[in-house]
Amino acid sequence: MKATVYVTIKQNVLDPQGAAVEGALHSMGFQEVGKVRIGKYLEFELDTTDRLEAEQRVTLMCEKLLANTVIEDYRFELEG
Amino acid sequence: MKATVYVTIKQNVLDPQGAAVEGALHSMGFQEVGKVRIGKYLEFELDTTDRLEAEQRVTLMCEKLLANTVIEDYRFELEG
Repeated sequence: MKATVYVTIKQNVLDPQGAAVEGALHSMGFQEVGKVRIGKYLEFELDTTDRLEAEQRVTLMCEKLLANTVIEDYRFELEG
Repeated sequence: MKATVYVTIKQNVLDPQGAAVEGALHSMGFQEVGKVRIGKYLEFELDTTDRLEAEQRVTLMCEKLLANTVIEDYRFELEG
């Protein structure tokens, strides 16, 4: 089974990396860009065929390691 | 219009961040995880309603700033 995890910074939390990229895009002439937010994107294989178990395990991984749930949200998709 | 950009490391390029996360997950008991790859995920607003123009502009942004096309692939979605 393949898992895809998206970790994003919560709406009300400042995103300095996004602000830096937005500034860089503006200075390069891309003035139409706004509200840049940057997150992480993870793909991995899971050696299991049990979808429910996979969901529980990936949730645990996100809570324990992949996301800092104080300032980040996460969501994931499972395939196969 | 809202743009979502995914920047991922090319298949044949080593991903040390992914390897580190994979090692951490294994040491935490998530032995079923393999082939971890980590990428970037960007969301931003585009002040335009012309879809074709937006596609061309976001492609330019990816080529010039958002992705290092020597080692990274990118794809994007436009909404609205």
